[in-house]
Amino acid sequence: MTDPTPETAELVLAGGEHVPGLLREVEALLGQEAASWGDPVGPWGEQTISAGGKRLRPLLLLLVAGAPAGPEGSARLVHAAAAIELIHSATLVHDDVLDDADLRRGKPTVHAEAGPQMATSTGDLLFARAFTLLTEIDDLFSVRELSEACSALARGELMQRQDAWDKAVAVDRYLERCRLKTAALFEAACAIGADAGGLEVEPMRDFGRRIGLAFQVLDDVLDVSGPPERTGKPRGTDILDGTVTLPLILALQSDVRLGEIDLKSITDPERAGRLCDRIEATGALELARESALAMVAEAKDRLPEGLGEDRRRALELVADGVVARYA
Amino acid sequence: MTDPTPETAELVLAGGEHVPGLLREVEALLGQEAASWGDPVGPWGEQTISAGGKRLRPLLLLLVAGAPAGPEGSARLVHAAAAIELIHSATLVHDDVLDDADLRRGKPTVHAEAGPQMATSTGDLLFARAFTLLTEIDDLFSVRELSEACSALARGELMQRQDAWDKAVAVDRYLERCRLKTAALFEAACAIGADAGGLEVEPMRDFGRRIGLAFQVLDDVLDVSGPPERTGKPRGTDILDGTVTLPLILALQSDVRLGEIDLKSITDPERAGRLCDRIEATGALELARESALAMVAEAKDRLPEGLGEDRRRALELVADGVVARYA
Repeated sequence: MTDPTPETAELVLAGGEHVPGLLREVEALLGQEAASWGDPVGPWGEQTISAGGKRLRPLLLLLVAGAPAGPEGSARLVHAAAAIELIHSATLVHDDVLDDADLRRGKPTVHAEAGPQMATSTGDLLFARAFTLLTEIDDLFSVRELSEACSALARGELMQRQDAWDKAVAVDRYLERCRLKTAALFEAACAIGADAGGLEVEPMRDFGRRIGLAFQVLDDVLDVSGPPERTGKPRGTDILDGTVTLPLILALQSDVRLGEIDLKSITDPERAGRLCDRIEATGALELARESALAMVAEAKDRLPEGLGEDRRRALELVADGVVARYA
Repeated sequence: MTDPTPETAELVLAGGEHVPGLLREVEALLGQEAASWGDPVGPWGEQTISAGGKRLRPLLLLLVAGAPAGPEGSARLVHAAAAIELIHSATLVHDDVLDDADLRRGKPTVHAEAGPQMATSTGDLLFARAFTLLTEIDDLFSVRELSEACSALARGELMQRQDAWDKAVAVDRYLERCRLKTAALFEAACAIGADAGGLEVEPMRDFGRRIGLAFQVLDDVLDVSGPPERTGKPRGTDILDGTVTLPLILALQSDVRLGEIDLKSITDPERAGRLCDRIEATGALELARESALAMVAEAKDRLPEGLGEDRRRALELVADGVVARYA
């Protein structure tokens, strides 16, 4: 991790002494990947991968798996963890094309610097390389999990596009969209970790789904609440994008006058910011944040027996972490 | 095949009596795929898949493999053939985003009907489903071949974008780009077919590369020669797109005054058509067509021993077919 946050550092330590070494191997493999692509992709790939944030999904996979047995076990974990990060990076690059985004984590996007064509192909390359990495260790289980997660991600994006500017979107449909576009990759990380670590897969997949949903709900809260200095983007980007999220859905239920607003008429950050204020005034942000916290609590409650004290503690920290951002 | 051309029908028959049945199973699996996606993707996926042309890559895979031994062998061929067609479809959908294309085979593109976002995600979904299909039959070999082909496709697109409007592109670099963006998928089809059919993989991969290159060179000739009534698109779309192909490279070598043209200044179909005429006048189209024919001849010459008469004959027909289009 190029720039671990304090929370991540705590997590890494809680996972056991094998975790820092494995994470370094994941970083090395990712760096090797990007370096092998040559011009002109190399720099874009490298930029995308190294802009990489917290490596939350690889870390989750490693924490669920526990200490590997021998070098083959390590290699499988490292490859699968790198593959999941490549897929996450691919979706970010494509999302930036979809959203016409110029900045990601405060840095220019591939889309902004090289155009939508370069960005589309860079994303495709990242997807493809993820699967090649998995074949290097004959890991058909992870190919299945990650290809299904990729389908879910694409379907989630398509659903979001279909629902754009639709104020009548129900909570259930919103949650299904979050499951597809965000939780599916958390589920895959947990399923692969469970398979590698000799745990029953479905209960861990369940854990992944719950914390993935909570992660997305909190993301949607932060988009409305800001502050921009912390989130790295102006408030209300979802609104400007036509993406109707839980805070707005809940606000619409308690403030009927909000229903009169034509979302398509909100085309500048200032008006979007004013709508954010109105959403906040209804108490919807608290409600949404509480529902994310409830999902996390349930995820922790339902962690299966037999994880061992260290692994359980580390996973509880991850679960808390997804809703503790900028709290 | 929804609409087999006479050449394809001949090929299907030449491949042996098992081929029509397997192709019908491939169609059924592709149809089932698209139907399973539901709204709003289903219709886009279906449209993309059923707009499908000649199913050349699945057919190539089946012809190389020969008659399968038993139902498991059949299932592997059918799944791998469907997967390769899904990947081909995915690249078409993404290419249309890259090229801002409105029509494909005379029908509106997903990009034109649903916008670049829907098209980007539809392509992502098609890619992902291809790999899921392969995991259904535990076919790690095909995952490796197709993920590497996908990397090549993306790199080819990136290279094309990097070389855009560059009149100094050398023939070697042009051919490398063709190998990446077109021949790699033919190579994969042949490699998977060879593996399934008990043939040595590398000689068949070689065959795939040669006919794939010839296919792309002829495509580039047709873009300059037209006629639009046969190709389904106006002449000179590559020129308008900034894509410098073999006909232009060869024409630049024999008509120095062509070197004075600023390719970026050619922004309308009429001017592009006039440049096509000038390219044609240099004899570059004949030269390029001859080089494609030579590649095909070499591909046929180097077909390995031990294929059996029927399989050899069928593959020779495929090879001839890639350069016989609109002859």
